[in-house]
Amino acid sequence: MPDDPGERSIIDALLEGRPRVGPPPIVDVGDDVAVLPGGLAVGADTMVEGVHWDDKLSPADVGWKLVAVNASDLGATGARPAWCTLSLSLPRPLDLSWVRGFAAGLHAALAAFGVRLVGGDTTRSPGPRVAALTMGGPVARPLTRAGGRPGDALFVTGTLGDAAAGFAEGGPGLAALRRPAPPVALGVALAESGLVNAMMDISDGLFTDLSRLCAASRCGATVEAAALPASPQVAASPQRLAHQVAWGDDYQLLFTAPAERLPALRQLSGDTPLTPIGRLDAAPGLRLVGADWPAPALHHFGDSPAC
Amino acid sequence: MPDDPGERSIIDALLEGRPRVGPPPIVDVGDDVAVLPGGLAVGADTMVEGVHWDDKLSPADVGWKLVAVNASDLGATGARPAWCTLSLSLPRPLDLSWVRGFAAGLHAALAAFGVRLVGGDTTRSPGPRVAALTMGGPVARPLTRAGGRPGDALFVTGTLGDAAAGFAEGGPGLAALRRPAPPVALGVALAESGLVNAMMDISDGLFTDLSRLCAASRCGATVEAAALPASPQVAASPQRLAHQVAWGDDYQLLFTAPAERLPALRQLSGDTPLTPIGRLDAAPGLRLVGADWPAPALHHFGDSPAC
Repeated sequence: MPDDPGERSIIDALLEGRPRVGPPPIVDVGDDVAVLPGGLAVGADTMVEGVHWDDKLSPADVGWKLVAVNASDLGATGARPAWCTLSLSLPRPLDLSWVRGFAAGLHAALAAFGVRLVGGDTTRSPGPRVAALTMGGPVARPLTRAGGRPGDALFVTGTLGDAAAGFAEGGPGLAALRRPAPPVALGVALAESGLVNAMMDISDGLFTDLSRLCAASRCGATVEAAALPASPQVAASPQRLAHQVAWGDDYQLLFTAPAERLPALRQLSGDTPLTPIGRLDAAPGLRLVGADWPAPALHHFGDSPAC
Repeated sequence: MPDDPGERSIIDALLEGRPRVGPPPIVDVGDDVAVLPGGLAVGADTMVEGVHWDDKLSPADVGWKLVAVNASDLGATGARPAWCTLSLSLPRPLDLSWVRGFAAGLHAALAAFGVRLVGGDTTRSPGPRVAALTMGGPVARPLTRAGGRPGDALFVTGTLGDAAAGFAEGGPGLAALRRPAPPVALGVALAESGLVNAMMDISDGLFTDLSRLCAASRCGATVEAAALPASPQVAASPQRLAHQVAWGDDYQLLFTAPAERLPALRQLSGDTPLTPIGRLDAAPGLRLVGADWPAPALHHFGDSPAC
């Protein structure tokens, strides 16, 4: 998921000329996770101190979030998180109390998402703390970003913009920033239901992620600004729309399905709110009804736009 | 694999209290790789600039080595490397020529070891370059460090000390430092043959790694200094023994088997040299015949002993 202009060039360099050895994946690079022959989903997400977190997050929050964001990617493909490896690079002198806090949050999330830590390594870092996690798990019926069809209704789970509001304003949104709780089991249920055409998680903001879903599905989309589900804090914020579409860290599901399936989908989602926010169109491009799209934020702390 | 005194504390903090969710692995944390139910081997190894490489390695060497050291871990458990994810953290402004060089070496090694890059992520790093790779592959008959028995003969593949000599003295050993070529297919063949009792790769030096094998197998070992296989450069070096046992980056196999199986083992190993270097003993501790053990080096460039 490119987070700055340089990232696209890096990914291109890594993928161009990549040897195509062994059996091809069922879902290849470019979706939330890859799905290997046999139905193993594997994804990797890294958090770098000063880029993906600052002192708003405790060490335990960082450990929790690292597991949650990876579980979010798996769930958004319909995979059940099962195991992970952790590569942790830490500066010296070693701050062991940081490590213990990190481990406590990591363990809490591993228990919450049902994931076993099976390996990894630790290295010295002459720079910031870097925590790279790879997570795997079985997937019976993978769902990608590519299956959306013009006319599909667009749905999101939960509320959008909480983490952004928490980062900008403090308050209750801080909990969403610190301890994201992606609806992983619902992602699996939606994928296995066969009711859904395309799905992904919202990690980089609705505008950015919906653009990706539309690109993969070769269509456009129209979103109703007033329909975007908001917590009371976000609903009351003067930056409501920017928080909801132009930031990130929501870790909710974005998916498409024929509108008439809403009752069946609501039955599946149980207590998790599920909101229709618009539709996919044949015409390319993203349209926002009732407002202008705010410019997507570079939501990583301290990211420089020049690179 | 602890590379400094702080690393053990980090690993303890991460593993103590780790939730034991889901089915237990066949081989758990603490061996070269984990083996999950169903026979999937997974391992992770990270390289940090200034810690695991300096300017003796080109960007392409770094890309090659990252794949090779991970493939080495899998092969040493009897697993066939199949896929990997890569998490790459790079400073800005972005040096795209570094990325292209890295990708070229990475791709060459992926082709050589038969591994498909299926995912990962790239992030900005305010510090050094960090490349974390997780590799997986099937294993029919996992071999761990724990199966060694007193009386077993100790074997190593290839020659020892080349990378150390290359690092210290330059010359032909530089190739081993830059482009390690672990005998991965031989590791798989040895594991599947049923001839071998315990196996691991030598990545941190014979002294350190043999200590780990002995700890896992609950025994000691005696090594014949004169028997350690050496290339001409290492054989001629005044630091021969230190290079061979106290450094690292050999990426050869260390394994134990009844001595009388040597002919059958040699038949399996084909062109790869296979040398008996000693035996496992019931008495704990490592004994070196014909010399004193040199103190293990902290072989990571720039590692500080104080942490």
